[in-house]
Amino acid sequence: MRRHSYRPMNTFGKHLTLTTFGESHGPAMGGVIDGFPPGFKVDFDTLYSEVAKRRPGSSPLVTARNEKDIPEFLSGISPEGITLGSPIGFIVRNSDHHSSDYDEMAGKYRPNHADYTYISRYGIRDHRGGGRSSARETVNWVVAGALASQWLESKGIKIETVLSQVGSVSAGNLFDGLMTAPEEHSTMKVNPQISLAMEEEVKITKKAGDSVGGKVSCLITGLPAGIGSPVADKLHSALAAAMMSINAAKGFEYGLGFRAAESNGSATADLFMQKEHPESPLRTSTNYSGGIQGGISNGMPIFFSVAFKPTPTLMMPLDTVDISGNATVLRPAGRHDPCVAVRAVPVVKAMAALVIADFMV
Amino acid sequence: MRRHSYRPMNTFGKHLTLTTFGESHGPAMGGVIDGFPPGFKVDFDTLYSEVAKRRPGSSPLVTARNEKDIPEFLSGISPEGITLGSPIGFIVRNSDHHSSDYDEMAGKYRPNHADYTYISRYGIRDHRGGGRSSARETVNWVVAGALASQWLESKGIKIETVLSQVGSVSAGNLFDGLMTAPEEHSTMKVNPQISLAMEEEVKITKKAGDSVGGKVSCLITGLPAGIGSPVADKLHSALAAAMMSINAAKGFEYGLGFRAAESNGSATADLFMQKEHPESPLRTSTNYSGGIQGGISNGMPIFFSVAFKPTPTLMMPLDTVDISGNATVLRPAGRHDPCVAVRAVPVVKAMAALVIADFMV
Amino acid sequence: MRRHSYRPMNTFGKHLTLTTFGESHGPAMGGVIDGFPPGFKVDFDTLYSEVAKRRPGSSPLVTARNEKDIPEFLSGISPEGITLGSPIGFIVRNSDHHSSDYDEMAGKYRPNHADYTYISRYGIRDHRGGGRSSARETVNWVVAGALASQWLESKGIKIETVLSQVGSVSAGNLFDGLMTAPEEHSTMKVNPQISLAMEEEVKITKKAGDSVGGKVSCLITGLPAGIGSPVADKLHSALAAAMMSINAAKGFEYGLGFRAAESNGSATADLFMQKEHPESPLRTSTNYSGGIQGGISNGMPIFFSVAFKPTPTLMMPLDTVDISGNATVLRPAGRHDPCVAVRAVPVVKAMAALVIADFMV
Amino acid sequence: MRRHSYRPMNTFGKHLTLTTFGESHGPAMGGVIDGFPPGFKVDFDTLYSEVAKRRPGSSPLVTARNEKDIPEFLSGISPEGITLGSPIGFIVRNSDHHSSDYDEMAGKYRPNHADYTYISRYGIRDHRGGGRSSARETVNWVVAGALASQWLESKGIKIETVLSQVGSVSAGNLFDGLMTAPEEHSTMKVNPQISLAMEEEVKITKKAGDSVGGKVSCLITGLPAGIGSPVADKLHSALAAAMMSINAAKGFEYGLGFRAAESNGSATADLFMQKEHPESPLRTSTNYSGGIQGGISNGMPIFFSVAFKPTPTLMMPLDTVDISGNATVLRPAGRHDPCVAVRAVPVVKAMAALVIADFMV
Repeated sequence: MRRHSYRPMNTFGKHLTLTTFGESHGPAMGGVIDGFPPGFKVDFDTLYSEVAKRRPGSSPLVTARNEKDIPEFLSGISPEGITLGSPIGFIVRNSDHHSSDYDEMAGKYRPNHADYTYISRYGIRDHRGGGRSSARETVNWVVAGALASQWLESKGIKIETVLSQVGSVSAGNLFDGLMTAPEEHSTMKVNPQISLAMEEEVKITKKAGDSVGGKVSCLITGLPAGIGSPVADKLHSALAAAMMSINAAKGFEYGLGFRAAESNGSATADLFMQKEHPESPLRTSTNYSGGIQGGISNGMPIFFSVAFKPTPTLMMPLDTVDISGNATVLRPAGRHDPCVAVRAVPVVKAMAALVIADFMV
Repeated sequence: MRRHSYRPMNTFGKHLTLTTFGESHGPAMGGVIDGFPPGFKVDFDTLYSEVAKRRPGSSPLVTARNEKDIPEFLSGISPEGITLGSPIGFIVRNSDHHSSDYDEMAGKYRPNHADYTYISRYGIRDHRGGGRSSARETVNWVVAGALASQWLESKGIKIETVLSQVGSVSAGNLFDGLMTAPEEHSTMKVNPQISLAMEEEVKITKKAGDSVGGKVSCLITGLPAGIGSPVADKLHSALAAAMMSINAAKGFEYGLGFRAAESNGSATADLFMQKEHPESPLRTSTNYSGGIQGGISNGMPIFFSVAFKPTPTLMMPLDTVDISGNATVLRPAGRHDPCVAVRAVPVVKAMAALVIADFMV
Repeated sequence: MRRHSYRPMNTFGKHLTLTTFGESHGPAMGGVIDGFPPGFKVDFDTLYSEVAKRRPGSSPLVTARNEKDIPEFLSGISPEGITLGSPIGFIVRNSDHHSSDYDEMAGKYRPNHADYTYISRYGIRDHRGGGRSSARETVNWVVAGALASQWLESKGIKIETVLSQVGSVSAGNLFDGLMTAPEEHSTMKVNPQISLAMEEEVKITKKAGDSVGGKVSCLITGLPAGIGSPVADKLHSALAAAMMSINAAKGFEYGLGFRAAESNGSATADLFMQKEHPESPLRTSTNYSGGIQGGISNGMPIFFSVAFKPTPTLMMPLDTVDISGNATVLRPAGRHDPCVAVRAVPVVKAMAALVIADFMV
Repeated sequence: MRRHSYRPMNTFGKHLTLTTFGESHGPAMGGVIDGFPPGFKVDFDTLYSEVAKRRPGSSPLVTARNEKDIPEFLSGISPEGITLGSPIGFIVRNSDHHSSDYDEMAGKYRPNHADYTYISRYGIRDHRGGGRSSARETVNWVVAGALASQWLESKGIKIETVLSQVGSVSAGNLFDGLMTAPEEHSTMKVNPQISLAMEEEVKITKKAGDSVGGKVSCLITGLPAGIGSPVADKLHSALAAAMMSINAAKGFEYGLGFRAAESNGSATADLFMQKEHPESPLRTSTNYSGGIQGGISNGMPIFFSVAFKPTPTLMMPLDTVDISGNATVLRPAGRHDPCVAVRAVPVVKAMAALVIADFMV
């Protein structure tokens, strides 16, 4: 157990904050949203449907774990559904425990999971589940993100996320159009054939007891220029930190991203275009910057991608060690998604909404 | 000028904090390091030489701007060079102003620079330089990072950074060995031929008045298991936020990175190896995780890469608009590096040191 | 509604944090305790009895509102009662709403209450109760403080609070002995006669439909030297901020307090005494400093007092204005304590425990 | 040296922050003001004269230490004196070291000073001065506070501070008029006879080699209603924390203060008065609340007092112990003010300005 064990570590945001709690196999998940603007009318139907998208069991591609996942709001919203400016407390009950699925794991470290690192950090671990390392935590983010999304939409800011890669199946470079002809590409479309191929890839992987990585891409439109800061609070730095907080995330890029490393400046300069009316916002002819220059939004669409590793749990025996460091074999049980990226699609959207709202309130 | 203009935004870190100030064309840069452990003997020679590595004019590859860049320490260190536990204040004078170089920019927005976004944010801008968006700010980070590096080295933690790509010239996949045979690869080596080719690429680009992107890679060894947190304070999330704070950064990946998206779980599982002695730390046979699992270090080496876009300033005329939104042409002046990634090598190291030290104090 | 409406404002502490939520007439109060040390065995019986001490209806002196106030813990504690190092989420249901008592207040500003300031701040207010300004919020603090107290006691740190004044009835100067002969006074004792006189004062006031102020005093023993910081994080500054967060608090003093203003340095110097054994902690012969010198504990007992104003609600008609600013008369309803200081006794203890634990974790 | 040694502890404020550094006997004091609004024209003459008021040697009542105390601004302000929205870095050189005055203290703990607590905290101490515990630090606050005051005055908010007590000489209850007839008392006036008597008290005390306590009172006018928060960020809690950060402060009270403990609610209710015009702000007939209700300003003047202990340094031999805990006698040297409250007058103003500005930006 390390000295810094006590570093507070469950709060996202600076002005609009989300503080969360909950173990996957405890009674409930939950959180406190502080700094949400007063006087906003919440649309609960939309909110519940956003939360449902994340739910395990919501598609044949994802784990069969069956949680109702209806958040209970305990404060901060009047009976009429109007936000009060006070903190919004909510809980989501954990209704479907199969702790016995985890018996196999009691004394063994699962490869690529956080079991070993978690116990190195805290000195104690509840082996009935992933504790705070479980993706169950993301239900808290999706609840808060759904509120933030609604509020942003009321300001004309829209956030879209899509699954853009599963293993060898890729949506091609979704960003090409967004970068070279931004005015003609105000939404992200994945070819339906490719979506089907991704589904197929997930099914094949599942059948093989294996898992596969993926990529999620995000487009934010309607954000005005001037959001972000030039040094320690850059908009893309906040987005990167949020995205890399999502379970299994391995990489983040925005605008030209990693392709920037091989590019020339003359070919990727976003030139400002003459304004048609003095009042219209300034636009650039291309958008290699991905809508952010010097850490501050420039009014063009923001887009970024997040890479996810394959789900660490495999439906095959794996060599590992027990907590004494002796070789053993892990025979997995439980129910798991073969492709964590699939379930990350609404989570990336939620985290993006929280970041943008944090800068906008 | 936006409502959130006043969001504090010049402090890095939570426990070991660096708060900075300075405009590139003002009298001085500087900062306050708070939370640095007391009783540590500073090696100033090493510190000055670390800072010198970042200095413009330190190599034929980088801009000719000539700054001495000797930090003056004003507090927190005794006359004998021992840290006192109190905040370490320092300044670095700006000795070499050529504000007239910037006259051309007074009323025009430079493409791909932060000029327009900066004024959207603050409503005021000192056109004599990049203000807080200038890479001059990184001198503050390198001073603080050099102190943090020394302290980390005294704990056995070592941070290496290398230039791993310039345009089409790449160091190959430096990470292959680090991932598949981590015990045999405890340092990053770039083939000297490739280093020369990178230099050549920079020179050619410079001669053409153009600029080019690049990539910097980082290896951290000696970090014990248990550093980081499972939710909002993940170690790789903090690293990503810090790296994406560096001027011109466009992407971040660690361990398997973006290749994770196309990988299978069975081929990239880091299996724990039986301990040789009960007291020895646990190791994994491969290191696709890049030393971090669930946001917490696992004792294996940490490695990551950062992509940088080409320097936005070009030595060629560029179409742009003036501050009224009318078309004009920018004829650049001033002195600039064609490849910002070259100068980012010590900056990535400094920021990594600050992040790791922030978790270790 | 002011620009800074969104300033996050429901979190106490820096390392051990408590983030709370709940309106007095909503479904539940609750909070998240982050940074609580792992591996601590919670004594729930003691905890529930601490929380019960604060409960309305727990004594003839306080309001008849009947809340069970059994906190439900949702995370961070294992089924065996061991803390996990993860955030401890809890809720306390609001079981006894009599919103109709508040009808009278719907369109009127109650004098000395936060009605008018609250609506100036948020632009919206749920008139069914005091919203976040209600003393109901303190149940969250007492739950968290009871956990903190237990942990501190396991480290040998003990916190006592007593009611030391009600209107004209005062416990005399409790601090005289603590200051002049600290070694002989390791606890605070209020003469039972005086306690009875205080009770009488409360009853008489209640019968008259009036309210009365009071004072609560606190003694902390067992805290080692070296806790606190010399500038912005002084121990007594943190205590003052916490105490002044308690509803109706009007003043804070520690050690010699306001009497310091009329004292001479030669008469109030706490002289260090020769150590009996080299290993024993340093002691002072007197303790005018109240255990804190330069913002840092010196190992002597800490003591302070907090003054509370009379409960603003009176059981008599009061001139006021309606929300349009027109004169009207408020005819109070609802149930209220005549002396808020009585109920502040466990709250002062809880807040002191949270502050000290925040510095100790 | 304690585990939490590294808690960052030199930053005040949340939105407008001041991060400071400097040892009294090091090369310079200094700070970084972050979050200051852009576009404000600084009046440097007024600023320098505010800073000069704090300066040692500015009056016969205070220590002869002679510092020029001209702050050097290094960033955040344009050459034309306009704030840029970027962090304002400044330093104040320490010009007048007499470290030899401190030789006597090298191995001894001064009673009532922070010597012993400081070394308990950090394990290291520079005996050439008070380190971070020295009142020299307040020069940083006064520089930043003078900027904040100017900005507040441009918004119609005015802060006054006076010395209201020295030992047995008191300005009577300055607050009586402010509380009972607030509209007639828009400024604080101390009878000139009483001011002279206070001066006399200081001189007599100095001649006797003794020291004496005092009290400083503060009045803030022009603050609109709605500033502050109802729970963890109460306006008076922030004021208390700031005031208790000032060296030698022992108590804080606002509005009715400690007198509240002995008052009845019926006699101290601030009744709202009918508005004369619908647009005019709401006023109360009395102001026992001191301008704050439920942690939020109500538009009435704010007033509070701070008690200060006598200067701990005495010009007479004092029994103490050396760092090994053996009895010895301290023979003081150096130059010190007998009444620290005198010099606190501009410091209370500066800290109040920083707090109010922090809520207003």
